[in-house]
Amino acid sequence: MRFIKKDILDIKSLELHEIEMILDTAQGMKEISERPVKKVPTLRGKTIVLFFQEPSTRTKLSFDTAAKRLSADSLSISKSSSSIVKGETLIDTARNLEAMKPDVIVLRHPSSGAAHLIAKRVKASVINAGDGIHAHPSQALLDMMSVREKKGEIKGLKISIIGDIAHSRVARSDITGFSKMGANVFICAPGTMIPMGIENLGCTISPNMETCIEGADVIMMLRIQKERQGNILFPTEREYTMLFGLNKARLNLAKKDVIVMHPGPLNRGVEISSEVADSECSLILDQVTNGVALRMALFYLVAGGGRNADLY
Amino acid sequence: MRFIKKDILDIKSLELHEIEMILDTAQGMKEISERPVKKVPTLRGKTIVLFFQEPSTRTKLSFDTAAKRLSADSLSISKSSSSIVKGETLIDTARNLEAMKPDVIVLRHPSSGAAHLIAKRVKASVINAGDGIHAHPSQALLDMMSVREKKGEIKGLKISIIGDIAHSRVARSDITGFSKMGANVFICAPGTMIPMGIENLGCTISPNMETCIEGADVIMMLRIQKERQGNILFPTEREYTMLFGLNKARLNLAKKDVIVMHPGPLNRGVEISSEVADSECSLILDQVTNGVALRMALFYLVAGGGRNADLY
Amino acid sequence: MRFIKKDILDIKSLELHEIEMILDTAQGMKEISERPVKKVPTLRGKTIVLFFQEPSTRTKLSFDTAAKRLSADSLSISKSSSSIVKGETLIDTARNLEAMKPDVIVLRHPSSGAAHLIAKRVKASVINAGDGIHAHPSQALLDMMSVREKKGEIKGLKISIIGDIAHSRVARSDITGFSKMGANVFICAPGTMIPMGIENLGCTISPNMETCIEGADVIMMLRIQKERQGNILFPTEREYTMLFGLNKARLNLAKKDVIVMHPGPLNRGVEISSEVADSECSLILDQVTNGVALRMALFYLVAGGGRNADLY
Repeated sequence: MRFIKKDILDIKSLELHEIEMILDTAQGMKEISERPVKKVPTLRGKTIVLFFQEPSTRTKLSFDTAAKRLSADSLSISKSSSSIVKGETLIDTARNLEAMKPDVIVLRHPSSGAAHLIAKRVKASVINAGDGIHAHPSQALLDMMSVREKKGEIKGLKISIIGDIAHSRVARSDITGFSKMGANVFICAPGTMIPMGIENLGCTISPNMETCIEGADVIMMLRIQKERQGNILFPTEREYTMLFGLNKARLNLAKKDVIVMHPGPLNRGVEISSEVADSECSLILDQVTNGVALRMALFYLVAGGGRNADLY
Repeated sequence: MRFIKKDILDIKSLELHEIEMILDTAQGMKEISERPVKKVPTLRGKTIVLFFQEPSTRTKLSFDTAAKRLSADSLSISKSSSSIVKGETLIDTARNLEAMKPDVIVLRHPSSGAAHLIAKRVKASVINAGDGIHAHPSQALLDMMSVREKKGEIKGLKISIIGDIAHSRVARSDITGFSKMGANVFICAPGTMIPMGIENLGCTISPNMETCIEGADVIMMLRIQKERQGNILFPTEREYTMLFGLNKARLNLAKKDVIVMHPGPLNRGVEISSEVADSECSLILDQVTNGVALRMALFYLVAGGGRNADLY
Repeated sequence: MRFIKKDILDIKSLELHEIEMILDTAQGMKEISERPVKKVPTLRGKTIVLFFQEPSTRTKLSFDTAAKRLSADSLSISKSSSSIVKGETLIDTARNLEAMKPDVIVLRHPSSGAAHLIAKRVKASVINAGDGIHAHPSQALLDMMSVREKKGEIKGLKISIIGDIAHSRVARSDITGFSKMGANVFICAPGTMIPMGIENLGCTISPNMETCIEGADVIMMLRIQKERQGNILFPTEREYTMLFGLNKARLNLAKKDVIVMHPGPLNRGVEISSEVADSECSLILDQVTNGVALRMALFYLVAGGGRNADLY
C-alpha cells in the first residue's frame, strides 16, 4: 500500500489507515538512531527546507536530525534572516522557496492556517510543524506512537489531557488523533482555558482534575505559558498548581500502569512536579526519541514514496 | 577553455567570454535540480563559507542550495554570531576564515567594496553576494541567463529598468552586464533616485516611464524600499505607483512578447501590480530557479575548475 | 592505546598521555584540510550538536568545519532559537538533546561548570567549548599543538601570558596545560585582572611586562574586552597599551626566535601592535588552522574511538 498524501497539515485530514502507516513506518525508523552509523541513504539528493517563524529547540532540531539521518539536504531559514522582515507576503515567500525546487517544506508559523495556505500553492510537500493554535500533527503522531508502543494499542484507553487547551495546538491535534484511534479522551483546565465547542473534536470535559485522571491510562500535561499569567487566564502559578498540577498524590488516582506525557519544555513545579516528571511512569524523553523516528517516517512517506520501501 | 578568475566580484571585471562561459555552465546545471536525486558529487570535500552580514532569504538559501546540490560542505556565519560584534576588522575576520582553509567565501556586506577588499587577502575564491550599493553580480548573471533563455540572445534587446537605481546594486550590475552583452538599456526613476554619471555604465535615462518602456523587450522593476519614504526620495507610495508603477495598461506600451522581471521581494501594488506580477509574461519565479543553477555554475567554475568538467 | 575519556571538559582532568595522544592525532588530521578533497568518511553517520549560548565566529565555525571534514552530521542550536527563552533548565535541555541520540554535544555557555553539569547527565560525549571564566580546553590544546609544532617540545619553555587573566577561560586552560607539559609559565596584568590564588594553577606572577617577557620563548597576548573599560579594571586603553601592550620594542626583550600568540579576535593597537601581529613571529593564523585539526582530533577520539584508527 502506498502513502498518497502530498502534505501533512493536520490530524483531521489523515485517514485512520494513513495514521497507522505513519506509526508503523516510524517504528521501523526508530532503530536507525540506535546504530553506530545513524544514517541511511534513503533520501539522498532530496532538499528539505526548514522554515521556522517561531522559536523552537526540540521541534526544529528533531526535523533537522530526521532529515540528516535519511541523508537529505536540509536548509534552514528563520524569521530574522528572511525577507518577511522586508514585507513580503507568505505566499510569495513560499513560491520563491518552491522555485528552488525543494522536495519538502517544513513550516512553523504563528498564524493558524499558514501551512494549508502554502500547501495549495507549491508542488513541494508541506509538513505543518505548528501553525498558530490550530495544529501540530507531528507532535500528535509522536504522542500516538509513544502510547501505542507502551500500551500495545490506543483503542479503549482513557487519555486525560490537562492544561491550557485553548492556546494549545498540541492539545487540538492530540484530541483529534487519540479520539480517531478509538481512545476516550478527557480534558480538564480552568474555564478560561477551555475553548467553546472543543467537545466536537472528540473529548469530554471533566469538572475537576481528580475526575479527569481517575482511572486514566495516559495523562498528558500541557505546558503553562507563564507569560499568560497576569492576564485573565489564571490568577497565580501557585493556585494553578494547586488545582491543575500533577503530583504524586494525584497520580495515585490513575491506573497503576499509567503513563505521563508532556510535549515540553517543562515548567517543573508548576504543571508537573519533578517527582512525577522524573519517575518511572514518565514517557517525556521517549516522546523526544520517538519524535525523530516519526519525522523520519513523514519525510520518507511524502518524499521517498512507498515506492522506495526496500531502500532502508 | 578554462575559467581562470579566482573571484566573482562584479560584472565589470568579467570578460564577455567569461560571462558566456558562466551562462552556458549554468544552463547545463539547471537540469540537476529537476532530477529525483538533485545532487552531483562534483564539489565533494570542498568547503564553502556563507558569510552574510545583511538579512537575506532568497540569496543565502540559493547559494546554500547550490552548494549542497554540488555536494560541497556549506557553513554559515551571520552578523549576530560573529566576532564583528566584538570589534574585529573585516580583514582580520577574512584572514581567520581563510586559515580554516575554505575553498570559497560568499560575502554579503553593507559596505561597497568589501568583497574586493577581502579577495586580495585570501587564497579562497570570493563571490560577492552584494556589497553596499556597488554590485550584486550573481543576481545580474541570473538575470542575463533568464533573458537569454527566453529571448535566445541579449544583443539588440531593449531593456528597461525602473526604480530606485541610486540605492540598487542589482541595477548597477544589470546595467553593466546587459550593456556589455549588447543590449540597449534604458532607465527611469524619480530624479532623487538616479545617481550622477550613471550613463557611464552604459544606459540612457528616459524622461518618463512611458518613454522608457515603449517597445521594450524586457522590463525590470526594482523594489521600492518603503523605509526610504518620508525621506526626500519620494513623497508617497501612492504617487510613486502612479508615476513609476508597472500595471497592465503601461505594459501594453512594450513589445507584445515583453518579459517582466523583478529581483524580489515584491511590494505588490507599489512598484508592480499583482496582475502583472502573476501574468504569463512574468519571469520572476524563473529568475529564482535560474539563481540556483547560476550559483552552482559559479561554485563549479571557481572551485571545481574547468579541470573537472567531465564530472557532472 | 585507546582514548577512554567520554568528555573533554577541561585541561585539568586530562592526563599527560591523553594530551599527547590528542596532539598527535591532531597533527595527523591537519593534512586532511590541505587536500583537494578535504573530507574523510571517519565519522559518517555520527551526530554532533553545536549548542552555543554565547556569540562566536571562529570557535563555532571551527567545530562545524571539523565535523564536516570527518563527514559527521552537525546540527546547531543557538540561544535565540532555543527553549531556554521559554525557561527550560539547562539539564532538561541537555536531556532532550540526548533523547535525539547525538554522539557529541559541543557546549558553549556563560556559566562556569555548565559543561560538567550536563556531561554527568547524558551518554553523549560533551566537549566544553568555553564555560564562563572557567575553561576552554580546545583552545588550550590548539595552543599547545601550535607551540609544539613550532618548538619541537613544550617542556622547559618560558611562556608569558599577558592580559586579563581574571576574566579569561583561555588563560586558565593555557596555564594549566602548559604547566602540565613542563613549561615555565609567567603571567602579567594589572592587579585588577589577576585573580587570587592563580599561582596554584602553575604559574608565576611577574611584577611588570618587561620582566614577564624577558627571555620568553612564547608570548601569549590576551584580548582586552573594551566593554570592561570604565569599570574599575583599567582606566584608559591608552594607559593599558603603554603598560601591557606588545610592540616591537618590547618584543626585543624576548628570545630571538620568540613566537607570539593571541586567541583572537585582535584589538589592534591595544594589546598588540599591528607590526607585531602581522610579523614573521606571529603564530596567530596558525592557531586558527590548527584549531580545525585539533577539533577533528577531539571528535575522532571521543566519537570514533581508537577502534577506528585505520579509517583515515
